[in-house]
Amino acid sequence: MVLPALVDAASGNRDWQVFGASAGLTLFIGVSLILTMRGGEMKVGIREAFVLTTASWLCMTVFAALPFVFAGLNLSFSDAFFEAMSGITTTGSTVIIGLDAAPPGILLWRALLQWLGGIGIIVTAIAVLPMLQVGGMQIFRLESSDTSEKVLPRAAQTSTAIGSIYLAFTLICALGYWAAGMSGFDAVAHAMTTIATGGFSTSDASIGVFDNAAIDVIAIIFMIAGSLPFVLYLQAMRGRPMSLWRDSQVRWFLAILTSVVVIITASLLISHELGVGTSLRNATFNIVSIMTGTGYATAAFDTWGTFPMIVFFVIMFIGGCAGSTTCGIKIFRFQVLYAIATMQIKRLLQPHGVFIPHYNRNPVTEEIALSVLGFVFFYILVFILLALGLSAMGLDFLTSMSGAATAISNVGPGLGPTIGPVGTFADLPDAAKWMLSAGMLLGRLELFTVLVILTPAFWRN
Amino acid sequence: MVLPALVDAASGNRDWQVFGASAGLTLFIGVSLILTMRGGEMKVGIREAFVLTTASWLCMTVFAALPFVFAGLNLSFSDAFFEAMSGITTTGSTVIIGLDAAPPGILLWRALLQWLGGIGIIVTAIAVLPMLQVGGMQIFRLESSDTSEKVLPRAAQTSTAIGSIYLAFTLICALGYWAAGMSGFDAVAHAMTTIATGGFSTSDASIGVFDNAAIDVIAIIFMIAGSLPFVLYLQAMRGRPMSLWRDSQVRWFLAILTSVVVIITASLLISHELGVGTSLRNATFNIVSIMTGTGYATAAFDTWGTFPMIVFFVIMFIGGCAGSTTCGIKIFRFQVLYAIATMQIKRLLQPHGVFIPHYNRNPVTEEIALSVLGFVFFYILVFILLALGLSAMGLDFLTSMSGAATAISNVGPGLGPTIGPVGTFADLPDAAKWMLSAGMLLGRLELFTVLVILTPAFWRN
Repeated sequence: MVLPALVDAASGNRDWQVFGASAGLTLFIGVSLILTMRGGEMKVGIREAFVLTTASWLCMTVFAALPFVFAGLNLSFSDAFFEAMSGITTTGSTVIIGLDAAPPGILLWRALLQWLGGIGIIVTAIAVLPMLQVGGMQIFRLESSDTSEKVLPRAAQTSTAIGSIYLAFTLICALGYWAAGMSGFDAVAHAMTTIATGGFSTSDASIGVFDNAAIDVIAIIFMIAGSLPFVLYLQAMRGRPMSLWRDSQVRWFLAILTSVVVIITASLLISHELGVGTSLRNATFNIVSIMTGTGYATAAFDTWGTFPMIVFFVIMFIGGCAGSTTCGIKIFRFQVLYAIATMQIKRLLQPHGVFIPHYNRNPVTEEIALSVLGFVFFYILVFILLALGLSAMGLDFLTSMSGAATAISNVGPGLGPTIGPVGTFADLPDAAKWMLSAGMLLGRLELFTVLVILTPAFWRN
Repeated sequence: MVLPALVDAASGNRDWQVFGASAGLTLFIGVSLILTMRGGEMKVGIREAFVLTTASWLCMTVFAALPFVFAGLNLSFSDAFFEAMSGITTTGSTVIIGLDAAPPGILLWRALLQWLGGIGIIVTAIAVLPMLQVGGMQIFRLESSDTSEKVLPRAAQTSTAIGSIYLAFTLICALGYWAAGMSGFDAVAHAMTTIATGGFSTSDASIGVFDNAAIDVIAIIFMIAGSLPFVLYLQAMRGRPMSLWRDSQVRWFLAILTSVVVIITASLLISHELGVGTSLRNATFNIVSIMTGTGYATAAFDTWGTFPMIVFFVIMFIGGCAGSTTCGIKIFRFQVLYAIATMQIKRLLQPHGVFIPHYNRNPVTEEIALSVLGFVFFYILVFILLALGLSAMGLDFLTSMSGAATAISNVGPGLGPTIGPVGTFADLPDAAKWMLSAGMLLGRLELFTVLVILTPAFWRN
């Protein structure tokens, strides 16, 4: 909070007091907690790891919401909490109208939340989730504990190295934006939310406000960069540059992305008279933005027709690769599901044959298959309950369905006039905002990390 | 086809010629095929069983479409094929407007198609699908090959016995309808499409045209009767009357149904001023009709609000029990998915514990778990592709999504003004009708039976 305070102070904006007060309050409560809890024995088992992960994301959100409450943005605590949750989970849905006139401190604060949320989830995905065996993430534990595949000996070291790569990407992206014509401030703010696949912008019109092809291309490159497994960048830098390309998750991600871009470009060419260049640029930018869960928009893509609209609805669920900043069901789970489903067809033809589904050249164990199945089951269940909850608040079919999808997959905009790419979440009832906040947290922490805490079995003994 | 011809002739309607011509053509082609193929050696392996099942449903549909083409209903062959497919798969979507004025022969033909389709799928589900190990249906093979659980020694005997029960249910249902005020013809026609969970009616306004509480109650009872495993009726008749109640699939089905009815009744009470009786009756009838995939309507339930609309959309996918006339994903698959998903949560808390998911007091083997997973994966995939295909034909979001769902789950009506409970499928483009027909067939034959034939591996050797 000190950074936005300094920026506001430097630009002569009185909002630095907002961040000063928030920082003071946060520091006071933090120090009080440290002092009261000092000396207690630290014992972190699996239960504690679940509670710690969920509680730390929740606490961060509560304190991150303070500047939004204190600033002169006319936000209720529900609004502020929603905005903070949308930031920390790298979702990108916003309830603030009038970003273009907002003080720089609050814009930087939003960018910082997403940037920290992005690196936070990569570290969580590398260090915590595989240990907790959440939703098939143990695939990646197996990989990193395999000595021949060992990247760096310890999680702390890996995290530091990945943090440096994350920082380097952010700087390069910011330089690119700046060279392409953004102001220094806009370049840094957008670089932070691009690499985090977050999607907060400094303008109500999102990146579309610049209407600059070079900026679009840079955004596309770094949104994709943020969607690939960061561990592979480390391998690439340590002398195995082909690691990225050899990874089947990366190949699938790029193949799906390319196919969708080609289909939507063709659809735009047929139904709109925009020319090849504009069609390709609009399709690529917005598809990449939505599939990776970034959430920038350069066009009202939900008015392109029903076919593109259903495509956008479906790709919201996909997301990027595990170990990246993206959310959604993620590519590797689709690979596992696909491997199992096609194996079924082979088994039908040869009932006595032995077929083993594979992921990235390794067999998929029963444990991983059932983990992925459990994850997808709860993903669909939470999506349906969320859509039902939103519709019970009086939202229409498209807003309820796309709102639930965009929240649980941490995308950003929904579809339709209210929460679509040209709308905001400001007008939703408070109860809907709380539901969506819960959806964002559930999606971001891979469901199970939160759900397990809600079971009676967790609290027994 | 002789039956409708007789009915038309008896009522002095010239349409008996339509059925005469159709019967003649069908007979001629059938006999020709028998004569040409005579003497060839019969060898039915697994491949042949797949082809036979799919081909027989397709052939039946083509010949069943003839009367619709020949009759003076102004139907193209696309329309006629769609109507026949909707009949044989017990879907209930219709392209005919003006049913109330249609000749009795054609109305009886539609009812007969659904009635035969209904018993056809029960026999297929009992005798063929478990052998082919389609989508987890092998659970039921295991059950019936277990000597202690053996119902009747051979599939042929079981099928005959179940056919008698099916006939008996139809007669009782028809008597009920007749006693409640329907004409004899309407009673028989509706009884056939009720027990088959088909949904074709003799009026454009469906069963709503009678506006009769007794008729609604009878329909509800027999739609539910058609959704339970028919094998259990056999067990109940053979001295184990508690079989039905002890079956966990039946319990889950009734529990889900009751919960949804309670929720929608409450929602109607809050948002509409209909009174408890009307709310309960409307909610129960239409929920039972849509969840069982029957497809009758007594109200424009898609105008009850967004919340009920999403509920109706979701329950379209559920269906009834395996071994019944219903389609959809079916209750036992949700039970298997739920058992696996909740087991995951237990495993998260005790990573070294051994947890085995159960279905109906039996452990779920890895093979069955993966079968179910593969089925659900393809179900969602086919649903998405179908919705995309429909939207590419220019249909709106709600029509595309609900049309795809209603076809693959063999429900009947979709949602919204075009294909909703008060609309028909008549105005859709021909290409959309063919896509929906394909969806109905895929859904009815549990996807894999058809999909497997489309793989290159099937045709190798």
